Amino acid sequence: MSTVVLVYSGGLDTSVCIPMMREDYGFDHVVTVTVDVGQPADDIREAEEKAKALGTEHYTIDAKEEFARDFIFPSIKANGDYEGYPISTSIARPLIAMKAVEVARKVGGDAFCHGCTGKGNDQFRIEFVMRALMPQARIVAPMREKNMTRVWEIDYAKRKGVPISQSVEKIWSIDENMWGRSIEGGRLEEPDYTPPEDIYKWTRDPKSAPDEPRDLEIGFEKGVPVSIDGNRNFTPAQLVMQMNKIAGEHGVGRIDIMEDRMMGLKVRENYECPAAVSIILAHKALEALVSTRDEIRFKALVDQEWGKLAYEGLWFDPFKDDLEAFINSIQERVTGTVKLRFYKGSVKVIGRSSPNALYSEDLASFDSQTFDQTKMEGMVAVHGLQARMAIEVKNKK
Amino acid sequence: MSTVVLVYSGGLDTSVCIPMMREDYGFDHVVTVTVDVGQPADDIREAEEKAKALGTEHYTIDAKEEFARDFIFPSIKANGDYEGYPISTSIARPLIAMKAVEVARKVGGDAFCHGCTGKGNDQFRIEFVMRALMPQARIVAPMREKNMTRVWEIDYAKRKGVPISQSVEKIWSIDENMWGRSIEGGRLEEPDYTPPEDIYKWTRDPKSAPDEPRDLEIGFEKGVPVSIDGNRNFTPAQLVMQMNKIAGEHGVGRIDIMEDRMMGLKVRENYECPAAVSIILAHKALEALVSTRDEIRFKALVDQEWGKLAYEGLWFDPFKDDLEAFINSIQERVTGTVKLRFYKGSVKVIGRSSPNALYSEDLASFDSQTFDQTKMEGMVAVHGLQARMAIEVKNKK
Amino acid sequence: MSTVVLVYSGGLDTSVCIPMMREDYGFDHVVTVTVDVGQPADDIREAEEKAKALGTEHYTIDAKEEFARDFIFPSIKANGDYEGYPISTSIARPLIAMKAVEVARKVGGDAFCHGCTGKGNDQFRIEFVMRALMPQARIVAPMREKNMTRVWEIDYAKRKGVPISQSVEKIWSIDENMWGRSIEGGRLEEPDYTPPEDIYKWTRDPKSAPDEPRDLEIGFEKGVPVSIDGNRNFTPAQLVMQMNKIAGEHGVGRIDIMEDRMMGLKVRENYECPAAVSIILAHKALEALVSTRDEIRFKALVDQEWGKLAYEGLWFDPFKDDLEAFINSIQERVTGTVKLRFYKGSVKVIGRSSPNALYSEDLASFDSQTFDQTKMEGMVAVHGLQARMAIEVKNKK
Amino acid sequence: MSTVVLVYSGGLDTSVCIPMMREDYGFDHVVTVTVDVGQPADDIREAEEKAKALGTEHYTIDAKEEFARDFIFPSIKANGDYEGYPISTSIARPLIAMKAVEVARKVGGDAFCHGCTGKGNDQFRIEFVMRALMPQARIVAPMREKNMTRVWEIDYAKRKGVPISQSVEKIWSIDENMWGRSIEGGRLEEPDYTPPEDIYKWTRDPKSAPDEPRDLEIGFEKGVPVSIDGNRNFTPAQLVMQMNKIAGEHGVGRIDIMEDRMMGLKVRENYECPAAVSIILAHKALEALVSTRDEIRFKALVDQEWGKLAYEGLWFDPFKDDLEAFINSIQERVTGTVKLRFYKGSVKVIGRSSPNALYSEDLASFDSQTFDQTKMEGMVAVHGLQARMAIEVKNKK
Repeated sequence: MSTVVLVYSGGLDTSVCIPMMREDYGFDHVVTVTVDVGQPADDIREAEEKAKALGTEHYTIDAKEEFARDFIFPSIKANGDYEGYPISTSIARPLIAMKAVEVARKVGGDAFCHGCTGKGNDQFRIEFVMRALMPQARIVAPMREKNMTRVWEIDYAKRKGVPISQSVEKIWSIDENMWGRSIEGGRLEEPDYTPPEDIYKWTRDPKSAPDEPRDLEIGFEKGVPVSIDGNRNFTPAQLVMQMNKIAGEHGVGRIDIMEDRMMGLKVRENYECPAAVSIILAHKALEALVSTRDEIRFKALVDQEWGKLAYEGLWFDPFKDDLEAFINSIQERVTGTVKLRFYKGSVKVIGRSSPNALYSEDLASFDSQTFDQTKMEGMVAVHGLQARMAIEVKNKK
Repeated sequence: MSTVVLVYSGGLDTSVCIPMMREDYGFDHVVTVTVDVGQPADDIREAEEKAKALGTEHYTIDAKEEFARDFIFPSIKANGDYEGYPISTSIARPLIAMKAVEVARKVGGDAFCHGCTGKGNDQFRIEFVMRALMPQARIVAPMREKNMTRVWEIDYAKRKGVPISQSVEKIWSIDENMWGRSIEGGRLEEPDYTPPEDIYKWTRDPKSAPDEPRDLEIGFEKGVPVSIDGNRNFTPAQLVMQMNKIAGEHGVGRIDIMEDRMMGLKVRENYECPAAVSIILAHKALEALVSTRDEIRFKALVDQEWGKLAYEGLWFDPFKDDLEAFINSIQERVTGTVKLRFYKGSVKVIGRSSPNALYSEDLASFDSQTFDQTKMEGMVAVHGLQARMAIEVKNKK
Repeated sequence: MSTVVLVYSGGLDTSVCIPMMREDYGFDHVVTVTVDVGQPADDIREAEEKAKALGTEHYTIDAKEEFARDFIFPSIKANGDYEGYPISTSIARPLIAMKAVEVARKVGGDAFCHGCTGKGNDQFRIEFVMRALMPQARIVAPMREKNMTRVWEIDYAKRKGVPISQSVEKIWSIDENMWGRSIEGGRLEEPDYTPPEDIYKWTRDPKSAPDEPRDLEIGFEKGVPVSIDGNRNFTPAQLVMQMNKIAGEHGVGRIDIMEDRMMGLKVRENYECPAAVSIILAHKALEALVSTRDEIRFKALVDQEWGKLAYEGLWFDPFKDDLEAFINSIQERVTGTVKLRFYKGSVKVIGRSSPNALYSEDLASFDSQTFDQTKMEGMVAVHGLQARMAIEVKNKK
Repeated sequence: MSTVVLVYSGGLDTSVCIPMMREDYGFDHVVTVTVDVGQPADDIREAEEKAKALGTEHYTIDAKEEFARDFIFPSIKANGDYEGYPISTSIARPLIAMKAVEVARKVGGDAFCHGCTGKGNDQFRIEFVMRALMPQARIVAPMREKNMTRVWEIDYAKRKGVPISQSVEKIWSIDENMWGRSIEGGRLEEPDYTPPEDIYKWTRDPKSAPDEPRDLEIGFEKGVPVSIDGNRNFTPAQLVMQMNKIAGEHGVGRIDIMEDRMMGLKVRENYECPAAVSIILAHKALEALVSTRDEIRFKALVDQEWGKLAYEGLWFDPFKDDLEAFINSIQERVTGTVKLRFYKGSVKVIGRSSPNALYSEDLASFDSQTFDQTKMEGMVAVHGLQARMAIEVKNKK
């Protein structure tokens, strides 16, 4: 018996895959997997109901804490970013694929199906993990292989008794997990189109945000957030969601960028990432307090490489382990607190402290102990020595 | 006759240098030079009056347009930044030193005096340029050489008839030019001290900023700003000052960072840079529209190197020419407009357009012409091939 | 009438393409193009003869000087390298594709054919240039599309009257142009197999190389070689070929590396690049004499990026122009001579001189003028200041 | 009682420091420390004898194994290099300073003396470690402070009864440890002067080297060498010294470069580093077999940073720990053997193998399993997509 494990969102694309797996691809048994990484509870429930209606063996897997601890937290340490985007969808895909592999192992599945098209990034992220963890499995991607249109899909769904909740016209294409929400499609793709207010769901319009600033203190231990205003009673996922709530309330977290997709297309993207924007800002401020100048300079490069790997879904690449070894070596000292001020669409650092600060009154005395300004003439005199030699050589001609 | 050219701000430090040059350093003739790079007109006038009172040969040089065109504009192209600081004081120092050299050539000076201490960055920036352009000149730095206290300086000034406008207690140490204003000293040095509202002069408190957002369009040609809301009737300096006014009115441009000084001290710094913050944000958004992914990734490194050179005052370093050759090659295409929204302390990009955009409806058709999603299976299958090999090797053990 | 332009080497693969273009792909007219980039004259002649026999409209294009001047020389400036390989085949492919496009424009061709398989790098290099210069043209690649075996090809060739010069067994797969010769195939792919002496054609066995060292002086102007032992009577191609002769005679230029191909396969590669190895060694030595420390450090990164672009055949990428702007800014000063010593398999730099050297007796006096060792105490005292602070912070715990 | 610990080589400079410490600097007690890092045994003995003659409390510390294990081996993992120099003197200085600190702790010393001038790099390397490990200690550097000439030193030595072994004319200045030998001074500083054969001591003239090549196999485990031709009976220091012997016998290890010193002077340097050149070559070849393309590319940057830190003597910089965390993450897989061929001045890799190779026949099947060349058309078609868009945009104008 051949069993296919379908990464199932409950949406139209993956729903039409179910009859297709049986009729067009010849699988005896279709297993659906929905992974909860913080998307709306309604979506999870809808997936369960449709799976039931379509008669699949269905698994809903609550991976929220795992996502926060093992995917979001490493991303915070790396100031996880790709061209201004805090890589939210990107880092959820490997986890979803991992869970699909776990289910496949459990049910004896030997094939995977996903609903990614052949135009985007997700096919790379999901298939890499499947191939890395289960190299011999077959992977089918009907959306990529069949060039279906939305109209055709809806018609097909009706014919096959697939429950559909969406109309033919779907204005925005949304993807959500607790680290961010992406809104794509229609005029939003035009680089010069000012996004309408109604695309946002997690962030208030700055104009209607509270009139009083909100000052807040995030505590970090070894590079990861552990407290809000001194309160440590949060699991990782709870802390992230609380930060989404607070920052979003103040209109913070909207991102509007041009983004270069993996195959080379440049697209305009809109995101809402209130927690990601706030926590990474604070994390960087704390790193700036405890790291040396060279560490700050070079970690920017390491973070850039990490962000690219994460964007491309290469979650198990050994190069990622190497980069994280560097990152974690610095994070050992990234402990302390950062004060943020939220106000009508902006978040700013207004203070930071750490037991590992490379600044303190004690160190100021350390400074005066080793430092005698009357002796700096020599260092100033050799500053740019080679550049001056080059100028002299040039002038002699 | 030995003539010394003093870089003169009109403040206490450089004013006490005048009698010192005559009495302690034995110069026959003291020439003072004040360079106008956009600091308050009162400061310029005060310097002139004091110079007159102290009997120096005085030169006031209006370098505002030169500063904007030859120092600020290259900095915009390079997204000029050092650890979050848009290097404003840093890029004015070389110009000031250049002007001092020009005066020295004119008056036959064979020595320079400046008021920098031995603790900061400015000594490096100023002396590099003097040595680069006039290698044989003597440079004297009384503040560095004599470890004077403020109290001693004031007493000395009184004894020598130096007009003093400041009291012994000076709370903040300010430096201003049209690209930014720095505020240092006292409790501001504590990393965790929230700066009081009264240190700011160019930016309104976001809470009292206008209740309506201000949308504005900056036009760029080959990487430099040329228009505001379609109005091209600005000289470079005028455009910068207009942006200071608008952004500052909306509370935009405050910077609060930990900064690593050249000799290794980590200090907390506060700046106001309304124009710099806004223009560079817009410039980056335009670069993201017209540059390739590789250009964006690698220019971040080039800009980082450029920022470090500029921070260190190495304005005539041949390496800077090399970096600018790279930068200018990209700037050829950085033409277009960027829409910004200013609102109560924040500035955001809400649109961008360019004749050189690597996105357009035409290119979308270019895309569909070359792009067949059903053929992407092969590329997806080789994604992360080496990483998967490495995992296979590891698992075999 | 539909006309296809075939990039023609005269070998088996591209020869079988000729009847295929007519019979399987339905082209009315087949135009063959052989580009002379320094491969053996016999190969060129053989291609011409076969083309005649098969009735194509044939063009032989002597591009040797263009290859040396516009492809090899820029590569020298960039110390052109990819993982130890002086990118010889890589930089010839774009030129060959350019010439095919020129012929297509001339003959009114609207399609291209090449003989690259779907496993290697050349398909990327050749097609990128064709698409960049003639976006609307169709490209066909029978070797990639049809999974043909060597045996099948020979049989097909016999049936179609294609003259064949090779037997079924071909031990090594060779590619040659004046910048290098690659030898692949069979046991050579094993990383631990010591290559047999008979794979080499351009380099003598070091053991039978002359017993006397050969000292030689290469002259450079603005980064490119212009003379050998003072003799400037060389065209670019002649100079390269002369260096191949001399270095090869002394057994210099053999390269044995592991190389990561574009799709991720790691392969063991053997090359002979006598001129490339020698000239780039000399070029680097001259750069080390005239460039500043920062230029040397950062150019290594720029060169690495350039090498990757060139390896991938992205010859017209705007990013390449940017990198070359940086590179050329430095090359302005890369003028002078370098002495090399060749001896039984090795080449070494034994001297270098330049009017732009950042070392000279004059500069030594420049040094003593600005440099007073008794004043260096202050600089030494602040060396590693932050690192020492970090150690102090750590020890306090 | 004030006690000074003198880093003592037994040479003229540090010998004249002994009476100076007593007479000019007022120390009651002079303790001399000579650290054996593989320099000639005669030098060690001579230091001991002179110390005895001058009545110091003398310590000879055999640090050869510690040097090999804790300084050379980490350098091998990092392919330790600065501008072509395998940083031999550089990495011995911190160890020497560490040992001086250990002695100071033991004898209750509160000051250090070293013989470095104010012109070179060693003052930075030695003082950094002293200040890092014993921040409150005084450091005196008579050679830097007093601008002594060689003639004056010899006269002073005679007056003070300091035994001197050298004549006024010392042609070369030599520094030796088991990782390399540097030869400086006189005409050797001229970039274009071909070094005479008699400056070399560890390497035979290639012309008189054995007529038969020597093939040799180095075994590595986790990035460090553990065997030669299968023989594992070596301590780290013994293995290094054995490689010096073999490679030197075949004339391998001579280095002739332009080097940029820390204060900006560019100098011509000659080194002999037979073991360093051979072992690092082999190490790189093994890394190329087991690392991914991204790891190889990025480790080159990490190694460059590591080399700079090591060159500058910042051995305890936390940034070095971070870099080593990255490096060690890769070294976990750098296990295997590399075949080298030594012949008349050259060393080459002729084979490599590893259980962690990202190439093997098994992986070749892994390849064919995932790889279908007929499906690569899509990947080829998107290659350089953005570059082609940029060209199209440009052509439209």
